[in-house]
Amino acid sequence: MSRVLKLTVAYDGTGFHGWQVQPAQRTVQGVLEEALSELLNERVEIAGAGRTDAGVHARGQCASFATSSGLPLRAFVPELRRRLPDDVSVTAAEEREPGFHARHSARGRRYAYRLLDRDDVLCRRHAWAPPHPAAAGPLDRATRALEGEHDFAAFASSGSPVSTTVCRVHRARWSRWERGLQLDIVADHFLYHMVRTIVGTALATARERDPAAAVRTILASRSRSAAGTTAPPQGLSLEEVFYPPSGETS
Amino acid sequence: MSRVLKLTVAYDGTGFHGWQVQPAQRTVQGVLEEALSELLNERVEIAGAGRTDAGVHARGQCASFATSSGLPLRAFVPELRRRLPDDVSVTAAEEREPGFHARHSARGRRYAYRLLDRDDVLCRRHAWAPPHPAAAGPLDRATRALEGEHDFAAFASSGSPVSTTVCRVHRARWSRWERGLQLDIVADHFLYHMVRTIVGTALATARERDPAAAVRTILASRSRSAAGTTAPPQGLSLEEVFYPPSGETS
Repeated sequence: MSRVLKLTVAYDGTGFHGWQVQPAQRTVQGVLEEALSELLNERVEIAGAGRTDAGVHARGQCASFATSSGLPLRAFVPELRRRLPDDVSVTAAEEREPGFHARHSARGRRYAYRLLDRDDVLCRRHAWAPPHPAAAGPLDRATRALEGEHDFAAFASSGSPVSTTVCRVHRARWSRWERGLQLDIVADHFLYHMVRTIVGTALATARERDPAAAVRTILASRSRSAAGTTAPPQGLSLEEVFYPPSGETS
Repeated sequence: MSRVLKLTVAYDGTGFHGWQVQPAQRTVQGVLEEALSELLNERVEIAGAGRTDAGVHARGQCASFATSSGLPLRAFVPELRRRLPDDVSVTAAEEREPGFHARHSARGRRYAYRLLDRDDVLCRRHAWAPPHPAAAGPLDRATRALEGEHDFAAFASSGSPVSTTVCRVHRARWSRWERGLQLDIVADHFLYHMVRTIVGTALATARERDPAAAVRTILASRSRSAAGTTAPPQGLSLEEVFYPPSGETS
């Protein structure tokens, strides 16, 4: 009998070549699959909700896999933690219905991007000090203009094949954290490099007279070259993935 | 003509075997002396205000050195930054009077120790998740009992030769940071492992009925075995060193 499990995964992305398995590279998916395969004594393949890039972190990545193992649910978190290196951890395990898939079943994701007011050696792995910082007000006016359903083609790097460049952004707001500003952004799905391009574009348009109007012009262009630069990976973290309750997926 | 300079130094202690130069080990002092010697084209030896252990961080370490170089003061920060690795940085440079010494001239130091409410992969290098957490109230009652001038022999590991175990603690209070509690402690000087032993002792006595009385009993014992365990290094950071204004030292 096969079961489907969902894991919630946290990692410091600094030491990984991203989420997705690649030959001869240390990846989060690879490290997790190795620990799971050892624990369950069978070859396990997992699917992640977000294929985070090298250097990108996660506090709430979700992964799913099918297994024929009868290991009790409560054993997964402690047994995996024992087998995982210091920069990755499993924070929850859940039984899901057949057909559940961490990426396809997800209804939304929340990412955070952290800026530093000034360079701080202790935060260099987890936040970015931009060469030209901006104030919270103009940054917020820029990203609020992205809320709603839009074609985000201007904010996507080529690379990942996607069926549509239309996304629904539920929220894109800035607030203060201890040493700078943080963007919290929630959407149904994200395009390749979308959050990092939004951060680069918000910083660029925040210097203009009307950041919201500038962002609307860039959206309408549907052209990547109209948007700002891609902010570096270390400021980004996948914080949360949203799913319908068990039994209502796919 | 010789000048004395003071540098303010920040580092992520994770990748260092502490501050102090040791043969065949990567230390902060060693990395800084190498960068300075290369910049000034002469052999430079520096003195640090606090000899932080392996894994301990700093945002406000101070270091002094004498040099015959005529390099303008404003050049030190950018030129050193170019030569330093990613986990150490120089944030300020200042001319000081002859006789100034980063350790001997210091009048006080401020350390911070960060606890985590729960384990967090992204904070494991810079904070500690204790197996038995405590609330801010009892922790604060424990450490406030240390404020004032006392013999801290019970809170010192053997190792560093010191002239006296009497210290004046100006402030030892807990507050919240984003993911847990933080001790801020200011004293004229600190004994070996003193802050980390205070954190271990505060956590142990916070479970007792009267944490302040328990701490006073430990102080009076002057015995290391009466105090709690030494909290691990990664939660600790040297935040600031205090000096009298130029011309009033030594």
